[in-house]
Amino acid sequence: MDPFLQAAIEQARQGLSEGGLPIGSVLVRNGQIIGRGYNRRVQHGDPMAHAEIDCLSNAGRQSTYADTILYSTLMPCFLCSGAAVQFKIPKIVVGDSVNFPGGESRWGRSVDLLRSAGIEVIDLHDPVCIDMMKTFIAQHPTLWNEDIGI
Amino acid sequence: MDPFLQAAIEQARQGLSEGGLPIGSVLVRNGQIIGRGYNRRVQHGDPMAHAEIDCLSNAGRQSTYADTILYSTLMPCFLCSGAAVQFKIPKIVVGDSVNFPGGESRWGRSVDLLRSAGIEVIDLHDPVCIDMMKTFIAQHPTLWNEDIGI
Repeated sequence: MDPFLQAAIEQARQGLSEGGLPIGSVLVRNGQIIGRGYNRRVQHGDPMAHAEIDCLSNAGRQSTYADTILYSTLMPCFLCSGAAVQFKIPKIVVGDSVNFPGGESRWGRSVDLLRSAGIEVIDLHDPVCIDMMKTFIAQHPTLWNEDIGI
Repeated sequence: MDPFLQAAIEQARQGLSEGGLPIGSVLVRNGQIIGRGYNRRVQHGDPMAHAEIDCLSNAGRQSTYADTILYSTLMPCFLCSGAAVQFKIPKIVVGDSVNFPGGESRWGRSVDLLRSAGIEVIDLHDPVCIDMMKTFIAQHPTLWNEDIGI
């Protein structure tokens, strides 16, 4: 198991234990985790508190993201993809794209925006991430749909 | 002056008074403001605390955004545009696109993403917004560049 994806899974489990959505994220530079976060929509009543946004918030102000890698247990939506594009994060490693292949819009999918913007997206297709999200969506479909604006 | 843009300007001025960037935003439904926010990157040390994100956070969880309009004193970057696309905000009213015409990427500009996703973008080209941002950027160019990841 990739240790950074493992750290993102631990974030996701923390969120789940608090009654939130099990989605976690870490930001890595030079083999070190510089930010960790998880979805806190339910806990904070905050629709912007997606895992990747929470992670980037917790990492604090950075002079550059050019040497960072963003990990997420789930394929980023347009909100989180937009953050990566704006701040020029060059690489994103994803655990699960089965339960959510990215945000959808009339334009296209968020993963296509990432790739079109030159961001490398690596999908680890991790069974732990896939199973964790599948179980949550089956148990809490309404909460999940709210999270992605459906 | 559009009263909702005026409210967004008041948010921007609040941010400026706190030593932050003068960018404000409000979310409107049925002629009522349901969320207000301003850029708090400096105040909170949070690179995700763009005005529109702060506004959408403060509005709290919504069952739909289909009947909302997002106002911003400045053209949204990819982060904030991504939020609008993901949550299907149908209309964005902007005060200033002179000092920042939207985020840039290898793919294109954030405003093109908004329009390609079917979001109506109205640019009021407001002289108060334009002058406020122009003055700030001239005085604090490094802070501004950091805000948009340059």
